[in-house]
Amino acid sequence: MPECIPPGEVWLVGAGPGVPELLTRKAERLLREASVVFYDALVGEGILDLAARDARRIYVGKRSGRHSKDQGSIDRLIVEAALAGERVVRLKGGDPSIFGRSTEELEACRLAGVPVRVCPGVTAASAAAAGLGASLTLRGKARKLVFLTAHTRADDRLDIDWRTVADPDATLAVYMGKSSAEALAAGLMKAGLPGSTPVALVEDASLPTERRFATRLDLLALSAKTALGDGPALLLIGEAMRAPQPRPAGFRRPTVPGVLEPHAE
Amino acid sequence: MPECIPPGEVWLVGAGPGVPELLTRKAERLLREASVVFYDALVGEGILDLAARDARRIYVGKRSGRHSKDQGSIDRLIVEAALAGERVVRLKGGDPSIFGRSTEELEACRLAGVPVRVCPGVTAASAAAAGLGASLTLRGKARKLVFLTAHTRADDRLDIDWRTVADPDATLAVYMGKSSAEALAAGLMKAGLPGSTPVALVEDASLPTERRFATRLDLLALSAKTALGDGPALLLIGEAMRAPQPRPAGFRRPTVPGVLEPHAE
Repeated sequence: MPECIPPGEVWLVGAGPGVPELLTRKAERLLREASVVFYDALVGEGILDLAARDARRIYVGKRSGRHSKDQGSIDRLIVEAALAGERVVRLKGGDPSIFGRSTEELEACRLAGVPVRVCPGVTAASAAAAGLGASLTLRGKARKLVFLTAHTRADDRLDIDWRTVADPDATLAVYMGKSSAEALAAGLMKAGLPGSTPVALVEDASLPTERRFATRLDLLALSAKTALGDGPALLLIGEAMRAPQPRPAGFRRPTVPGVLEPHAE
Repeated sequence: MPECIPPGEVWLVGAGPGVPELLTRKAERLLREASVVFYDALVGEGILDLAARDARRIYVGKRSGRHSKDQGSIDRLIVEAALAGERVVRLKGGDPSIFGRSTEELEACRLAGVPVRVCPGVTAASAAAAGLGASLTLRGKARKLVFLTAHTRADDRLDIDWRTVADPDATLAVYMGKSSAEALAAGLMKAGLPGSTPVALVEDASLPTERRFATRLDLLALSAKTALGDGPALLLIGEAMRAPQPRPAGFRRPTVPGVLEPHAE
């Protein structure tokens, strides 16, 4: 029997990368059962339409630089709603367990004695790779996949151990890395990654506004500045992002840097 | 308008971690449209029931150690079906871009001039974390997430650069790592990870048969041998897997090693 939301309980639900079709069937069902839905800026348009008509929808978005609600306030809102007997869904862009700050919300619920569960979602890197028609791992070549965020600290320095990430056998998926692209490229090259390492930039993965851009590590800083707009972007770095070589006639192989045309259509 | 499957085209579709509810809405729709579905051993029970009643279902499973079909044969079957005018879905456990060998199938299609696209899925690590009620990343503590497989090479040695994976700031999600648990733990500890590093073992993530087990790095070899059955298992290694400290009364904190009871129910 599928798990449901009894009154007074909370589900943290992954909303996937953006487009409503990439919600899981379970997320859709939980959303329909909720009496209140807390959602943030990364939850794609159209997804909230799947909630019950009379469910309350409460925006608790945070944006890099301008936090409209701090994490503590969000935690409190969720717990209060549950204690008031609501069926609570906390909708999070992507997968709640990957850079979703879900630990804070889980702990807040548990401390208050509120039962809380998690419904996983499709993370942005998977959607970006799908849009590129590429794999994030390659047998023999990219046997490791590293997800990291490239948030800067207060002193504006990237707090990354370059030794562990500059790995020619890995694909690096950098979330929220647009503003740090220059420092990121410099750090990776200094730690030994070749400037010719292929990079794909994907903005608004899965959405109709998705943009894909092929570049290389030594051109990443420039590409990130010129190619991307305001949407959330993912940087995918490593040999797995190299455009495949043999192609049927009619396939337009991207010049580098250039807009990626991954499908042979 | 949603993308569909014209005759003669192929979709590689992520089937998610196992339970049919964790399929995406898009995957469900594509599955319904397919005239032929190629699936493997990691595709959960009940998922094939979502395909059209008259769609052909073709098993192309590979199992560690006993490959029933090699990758080249699978590639050929897919391409031949598309060239024969079928609407082809290639269903892959988890997400096609994460340890899914999708590059081979994408390239085979492109070489044959067959249009091919990818529908992402929920990867097993996300489902395992959800089942644990945990996050794979922790702000400040586990800012990096590393996915790797622990396949052994022909000479039975793990081919892993320990320097890049023994990172106290990362969560390590090891796919197919059960048989290599001993070598993995030894390698990580030799490279500097403390034996007290928390580890969660999750077998059959998301399925009714899911089993969760809490242990630590220096007990991992023993735990993997004694706690796990025959299902696909994921090893999650790092501080993010430490059982949270403050709990409401009545919560049974797991002894270590021990069966995890993540929810305060």
